[in-house]
Amino acid sequence: MENAINRQFYLHQRPAGMPSTSDVRRRDAAIPRPRDGEVLIRNRYFSLDPAIRGWMSDTPSYLPPIPLGQAITSTTLGDVVQSRHPDCREGDVVYGLNAWEDFSAAPGSYLMKVPPENRFPLHYYLSVFGAVGMTSYFGILEAGKPRPGETVLISAAAGAVGSVAGQIAKILGCRVVGLAGTDAKCRWITDDLGFDAAINYRDCGPLTEAIAGACPEGVDVYFDNVGGAILDAALMNLKDHARIVFCGAISGYNAAEPVPGPYNWWQILARSVTVQGFLVSNHVAQFPQGVARMSEWVAAGRIRFQEQIVDGFENTLAAFLTLFDGTNTGKLIVRVVPD
Amino acid sequence: MENAINRQFYLHQRPAGMPSTSDVRRRDAAIPRPRDGEVLIRNRYFSLDPAIRGWMSDTPSYLPPIPLGQAITSTTLGDVVQSRHPDCREGDVVYGLNAWEDFSAAPGSYLMKVPPENRFPLHYYLSVFGAVGMTSYFGILEAGKPRPGETVLISAAAGAVGSVAGQIAKILGCRVVGLAGTDAKCRWITDDLGFDAAINYRDCGPLTEAIAGACPEGVDVYFDNVGGAILDAALMNLKDHARIVFCGAISGYNAAEPVPGPYNWWQILARSVTVQGFLVSNHVAQFPQGVARMSEWVAAGRIRFQEQIVDGFENTLAAFLTLFDGTNTGKLIVRVVPD
Repeated sequence: MENAINRQFYLHQRPAGMPSTSDVRRRDAAIPRPRDGEVLIRNRYFSLDPAIRGWMSDTPSYLPPIPLGQAITSTTLGDVVQSRHPDCREGDVVYGLNAWEDFSAAPGSYLMKVPPENRFPLHYYLSVFGAVGMTSYFGILEAGKPRPGETVLISAAAGAVGSVAGQIAKILGCRVVGLAGTDAKCRWITDDLGFDAAINYRDCGPLTEAIAGACPEGVDVYFDNVGGAILDAALMNLKDHARIVFCGAISGYNAAEPVPGPYNWWQILARSVTVQGFLVSNHVAQFPQGVARMSEWVAAGRIRFQEQIVDGFENTLAAFLTLFDGTNTGKLIVRVVPD
Repeated sequence: MENAINRQFYLHQRPAGMPSTSDVRRRDAAIPRPRDGEVLIRNRYFSLDPAIRGWMSDTPSYLPPIPLGQAITSTTLGDVVQSRHPDCREGDVVYGLNAWEDFSAAPGSYLMKVPPENRFPLHYYLSVFGAVGMTSYFGILEAGKPRPGETVLISAAAGAVGSVAGQIAKILGCRVVGLAGTDAKCRWITDDLGFDAAINYRDCGPLTEAIAGACPEGVDVYFDNVGGAILDAALMNLKDHARIVFCGAISGYNAAEPVPGPYNWWQILARSVTVQGFLVSNHVAQFPQGVARMSEWVAAGRIRFQEQIVDGFENTLAAFLTLFDGTNTGKLIVRVVPD
């Protein structure tokens, strides 16, 4: 191994609020030895996602909390450097849930492979073809079930998930309105991505009225990435039989106190709304078909997306924090090994 | 008309908290004249339901708020005494959304008829065959979609909706656990109605753990009538892909301040839960089939239910308040005209 050190970021203590270098620390660890059925991966890229913050807490979620002392769970993409699984070979490029470390050992059956005929940059498999893009794709299609002519409202609409979900809804013939936190983001989703309207929720006056103005007939599908006050305003604008794709709740991820659910919870009953908790992990078996369809749209220029690639393992934690302070734009990826 | 006075309870001012006689007042009004397409009904029974409290407020809901000065909206059952609708005749017994008053004028097309071959007491059409029984029936079947062997948890399980929903789930082959607020209610649903277990939520210690004890494999369907802390405890016990039938939220109906939604909202995402806001009004066209199937179960003794019939128009408001103080048991009905 040309690099005999396995650098890691690991969980030293559970953060209260935003994670700091006291909570998530660096160390040099041994390179793991793959067990039978596992492969050893040299990680090239880390995918930085808001959900990782949740796994640092010890509240029950869809993944178990990261144990103290263990490397931070994260989707990574890398090269197989040693294989003890019959379906993986040295040189395969794989991606899956590993950790912020140079080398990961993982069960071969849990990993997805970049197809050999791939003609896109590898990091697309952590963004538009990865869990993020598949969240947009299956979230809007299978949980949102939008019909042509319906109104789709999307929060964090300039984010990696929301921006792609909105473009898919446009391809399906919907009217799409996005919520974002700066005028520049609003311009990007309308002028570059083709959203029908955008609302800067920091600068629009009362949000419930602003949404009503942009969605005068009401909202058929609300694709929610943020929860909190924005969800509450959206709830006041739903049409009967609306669908909420509950895809994330980033507004509460760093809260030290329990965060209340939506105050306008009652509207879910009053409007016969369906709320679907959406986890892309339920759709992993369908990823190849999702990647195939998205590949066509990306190649045709119908789906555009932003990536923000940060170079250097050592910048991982600092980059991660930008997910929560509003400075990040586009799918955030750390490049560990230069291309 | 043998009774020339039309007694009414009307909304004088919107209540803050529990409605009092300052908010909901009595008066004698004129008997309304049915317009073309309407019928005049002499009301025999009023159905008192928690949802009426919501209609007294001016927050948006599935029905418009009751205008100030107008009689309190309520389902009633009565005799057609004059008809200007081709499908209704004098002497028909009809039920529908009218008001707390002796005489109501209503569009004939909005009313449902007690079938001429009926062999049950008339007030059953405000309880087990009425909106309440149909809420149980369509709520558990169409929103809950329970499968044999699944675990169904029901709040307000000794209430009119919950007790019948639980018995239907038993008929379908589910394991059914009920939450109720007294030991007597708990004994009734287990010993008389056949629920598998009951939890007295006032006297069980931490509720999340109590539910876990009664539902060791987790909850597949949560039929919620109450919201609040009980919903939060239920949310911590859901299985993946659980369904929540959001049928009511009585814990918040009298709140003067905005009530937060569930603190454990995140579990809806983490467990890929579907929340279905359920309004029986979406199923009115299916009522005849629901009444037919329920009639068989009631006649066979497979569905049992409690009614609490209060005599006398003048007792309507006081009876209504017992819905919120825990003293009511069974579907609450006011008998305006002696049988």
